[in-house]
Amino acid sequence: MAVVLGPNRYGKAETRVVRVTREGETHHVKDCNVSVSLSGEMEAVHLTGDNSAVLPTDTQKNTVYAFAKKHGIGEIEEFALLLARHFVDSQPAIRHARVAIEEYAWRRIPGGPPHSFVRDGSEVRTCLVHCDADGTSTVVSGVRDLVVLNSTGSEFHGFARDEYTTLAETTDRVLATAVTASWRHRGATADHGASYAAVRHHLLAAFAQTHSLSLQQTLYAMGARVLAERPEVCEVRLALPNKHHFLVDLTPFGMDNDNEVYYAADRPYGLIEGHVLDDEAPPAAYAWD
Amino acid sequence: MAVVLGPNRYGKAETRVVRVTREGETHHVKDCNVSVSLSGEMEAVHLTGDNSAVLPTDTQKNTVYAFAKKHGIGEIEEFALLLARHFVDSQPAIRHARVAIEEYAWRRIPGGPPHSFVRDGSEVRTCLVHCDADGTSTVVSGVRDLVVLNSTGSEFHGFARDEYTTLAETTDRVLATAVTASWRHRGATADHGASYAAVRHHLLAAFAQTHSLSLQQTLYAMGARVLAERPEVCEVRLALPNKHHFLVDLTPFGMDNDNEVYYAADRPYGLIEGHVLDDEAPPAAYAWD
Amino acid sequence: MAVVLGPNRYGKAETRVVRVTREGETHHVKDCNVSVSLSGEMEAVHLTGDNSAVLPTDTQKNTVYAFAKKHGIGEIEEFALLLARHFVDSQPAIRHARVAIEEYAWRRIPGGPPHSFVRDGSEVRTCLVHCDADGTSTVVSGVRDLVVLNSTGSEFHGFARDEYTTLAETTDRVLATAVTASWRHRGATADHGASYAAVRHHLLAAFAQTHSLSLQQTLYAMGARVLAERPEVCEVRLALPNKHHFLVDLTPFGMDNDNEVYYAADRPYGLIEGHVLDDEAPPAAYAWD
Amino acid sequence: MAVVLGPNRYGKAETRVVRVTREGETHHVKDCNVSVSLSGEMEAVHLTGDNSAVLPTDTQKNTVYAFAKKHGIGEIEEFALLLARHFVDSQPAIRHARVAIEEYAWRRIPGGPPHSFVRDGSEVRTCLVHCDADGTSTVVSGVRDLVVLNSTGSEFHGFARDEYTTLAETTDRVLATAVTASWRHRGATADHGASYAAVRHHLLAAFAQTHSLSLQQTLYAMGARVLAERPEVCEVRLALPNKHHFLVDLTPFGMDNDNEVYYAADRPYGLIEGHVLDDEAPPAAYAWD
Repeated sequence: MAVVLGPNRYGKAETRVVRVTREGETHHVKDCNVSVSLSGEMEAVHLTGDNSAVLPTDTQKNTVYAFAKKHGIGEIEEFALLLARHFVDSQPAIRHARVAIEEYAWRRIPGGPPHSFVRDGSEVRTCLVHCDADGTSTVVSGVRDLVVLNSTGSEFHGFARDEYTTLAETTDRVLATAVTASWRHRGATADHGASYAAVRHHLLAAFAQTHSLSLQQTLYAMGARVLAERPEVCEVRLALPNKHHFLVDLTPFGMDNDNEVYYAADRPYGLIEGHVLDDEAPPAAYAWD
Repeated sequence: MAVVLGPNRYGKAETRVVRVTREGETHHVKDCNVSVSLSGEMEAVHLTGDNSAVLPTDTQKNTVYAFAKKHGIGEIEEFALLLARHFVDSQPAIRHARVAIEEYAWRRIPGGPPHSFVRDGSEVRTCLVHCDADGTSTVVSGVRDLVVLNSTGSEFHGFARDEYTTLAETTDRVLATAVTASWRHRGATADHGASYAAVRHHLLAAFAQTHSLSLQQTLYAMGARVLAERPEVCEVRLALPNKHHFLVDLTPFGMDNDNEVYYAADRPYGLIEGHVLDDEAPPAAYAWD
Repeated sequence: MAVVLGPNRYGKAETRVVRVTREGETHHVKDCNVSVSLSGEMEAVHLTGDNSAVLPTDTQKNTVYAFAKKHGIGEIEEFALLLARHFVDSQPAIRHARVAIEEYAWRRIPGGPPHSFVRDGSEVRTCLVHCDADGTSTVVSGVRDLVVLNSTGSEFHGFARDEYTTLAETTDRVLATAVTASWRHRGATADHGASYAAVRHHLLAAFAQTHSLSLQQTLYAMGARVLAERPEVCEVRLALPNKHHFLVDLTPFGMDNDNEVYYAADRPYGLIEGHVLDDEAPPAAYAWD
Repeated sequence: MAVVLGPNRYGKAETRVVRVTREGETHHVKDCNVSVSLSGEMEAVHLTGDNSAVLPTDTQKNTVYAFAKKHGIGEIEEFALLLARHFVDSQPAIRHARVAIEEYAWRRIPGGPPHSFVRDGSEVRTCLVHCDADGTSTVVSGVRDLVVLNSTGSEFHGFARDEYTTLAETTDRVLATAVTASWRHRGATADHGASYAAVRHHLLAAFAQTHSLSLQQTLYAMGARVLAERPEVCEVRLALPNKHHFLVDLTPFGMDNDNEVYYAADRPYGLIEGHVLDDEAPPAAYAWD
């Protein structure tokens, strides 16, 4: 046996950058959390502590801020591509760069001056971008913490049973989840702002319009709709926690409960994960790493 | 010296109740987190473990669910009053009830059926209600996690200095905070839904419209505006963390930074707390306990 | 009606300071989170934004670091007193200072060099200190997140009942809680290190050795034991969430469950709060604010 | 293009089970959080909502509890293997089971009866087990939130530089991290309790005893030591956030700072990730999925 170094990467995680752009009196705000990971010729630093190939994570942080100034922050996918390409192109020892960005939305305060904002929603827009020294790139866009609920239109019955099965079948339940979705683009060039808005719309619409016999069915419907409607997307990955809403038994108090009063449970929760893709999608390569 | 029991209370915290109301095809959802605390003749249970005065916290949870069925959940202040009054009126040993409720907002998914919802915003509506066995009640309404930002219109200078002061004066900074506000009603009867919407509006408007020389000034302006505009409110309490946005020094990279690129810091943070009230407000009694 | 400013305070929260002291090769580490709040002549800053009385929160942060250098960090109560007294003594407009400190414990890595440490436990030591410009001071010490469990020796029966009571009586249950305790010292001078260790010991011992008929009884026993054993303490305040461990019903699977398998629930939870004090304790004044 | 279902799995996450075993008066407690994920013939449920292959997640939860009763909970790897093997062996449509368990440690309260416990440490023991319908299994053990700090013995210099590099070189810094480590076993049969204790010991020892020129070097030393000392382990994966401790500049206050006073930063943070493995390790197959 010989001990060897396997895959590795390093970088600066969670650089919180806010970029303000002024258009006369009107301000625009981009509020992001940027995480960079680099990899390449890193044997020496691991084996002997020789840092000559290591661009400091502090430098990566500085680069985020300098690029925010120089290029502004447009769509997060574009900003991530700029950063990732910069690292692989400028540092010979760096063969691969991964940049993940979260964006927090703001909207204007009604009636306020055009520099006043209130946080818009609890959901977070995300992207994951890779650039390789061979010139290839991949772009994944996403959303997390998009919390949705159907108060009817959901059933669950006809399931497998064994000796540990006690669950009652139901033809009418609450279906609630916090959507984490990521979608891979066919290429690196898209109108990422319009694409994000459209994909988000279709995820919500598919959740709302699917009469659900299982959360898996809803998951597939959400992914399939995005693929059907958005040709720039070739694969969708979804993780849907089943945020259980249990009907409270009110019979001890002489009351029925006709799908009116629910207990929203924390744990345990169902967790449904699945990929939906175009069978002719280009290879994913390192896109999801 | 003799060891004695001082103030005490007990109850069920964080009962998560979701109430669905059906109006034909159209559903309405109320999503709440209810915490009950009771106090009264509790010497025996503390000193000897005699539980005869102790209505179980499990019963309090059941009562939340049963009342959600029987009365529905209208405005959270009303629901809290119903619950609190019930406990002091029905249990002779219970002399005082405190009910705190958080409400999470949902809005309809555009284009979806009228039973499909998406979580609306990250902010949380709150209330704190007390009912005493002597027949008195108090109502405090509130909001938390209302995150706001002014990208200009904020200064900070002319402050006190000592040997440890290094802060530079500024006439143009980002001012950002996560508002936690609570406001005491003069009475227990108000249109709590309309009142909440109006107070929230005035908090946002005062934050946006105040040219700020300090966060304390903004705090006072927010409280004073609510009092000026809403006669049903007699006292406002605010806690405003100063979510620092520090200008990044880009000079090492040959760049200026004309209020364009900020680092959003986590800790430490300023914390500004203050009460603003009508000098003729009725006594607060136990309203804020 | 006139709008007036009520009680207020401001300061820098959560300054994370780590102080290393070297004794030859042997290092000592103090890891603290310091929150300062000041109050005094603050009408002008609220009403007009005149900051002349406002020592910046940035200066407060600097003072924490400078004092950590100059005085070291001994017991957190001593460090808090130094800081609080400094602010009221050096700034004429500051009439009152409140300093809260959390301390995270480290222990040495066995077999490691005397500068290697591993975090010790999940609990946090706390203190809350006030100094007033009139020369008075108060000291409260505490602990939070001290998680304990008795797997037997706990009963709950003989409780009050109403139409919403369904809870079964039990003579053998799991009792688990995360202790948040604070205790007020009679004076500002004590051996705070030894006192903390002793109080913590007595809290644990009382929890373990009390055959409990209710969590209230356990709470009182914990507070009373501290008062009985530690003359420097005059008041104990406890908040004990009842971290419910529910017996799982295994009868559908043909199994009994003789207090063997439990579901550890998150929410809702019971919450028991109470004060235990010496009936001749000096007035608390502002100690708990 | 045709839309197809890709890899998918579903299950019950975070079933919180506490198992008490009585040995006369002496109790033993195992406190676990169990997450099950199953996969197999799941096309129908995704495409049409036909649940006939879907063993409900509720049943999975029940199975965790029933197995805790029937088999007890020994080492978490053993319990995970029992559960995973059960699902693939008993359900024809289930071809693969993944079970992840977290364990929270308790120790006895000194001087207390042998049924009284206090939570031991903030770290969490973990495992990730897979069983396939083809009869194969994999076992990964791990730890997370193991927080460690060296107050000296760490340097960082000789790194790559570019136009955005401003970091000063240092020959003496604080090195602190929260270790997340996972290690793959060569087989499914090991003395997992002893193995865990030994691996944890070697991780700590390597962290403490490595004079570090970079966190990558420390990472590699930790992994290599485990492989050198524990023949049952064939691969170690580590994620080490660099919890930056920045020296505070005290020169404005006329003080030096000879590695005495540090600011413990939250974000951003360095993140160093790497695999260390035996070059003759058996293929990982699905072990890390």
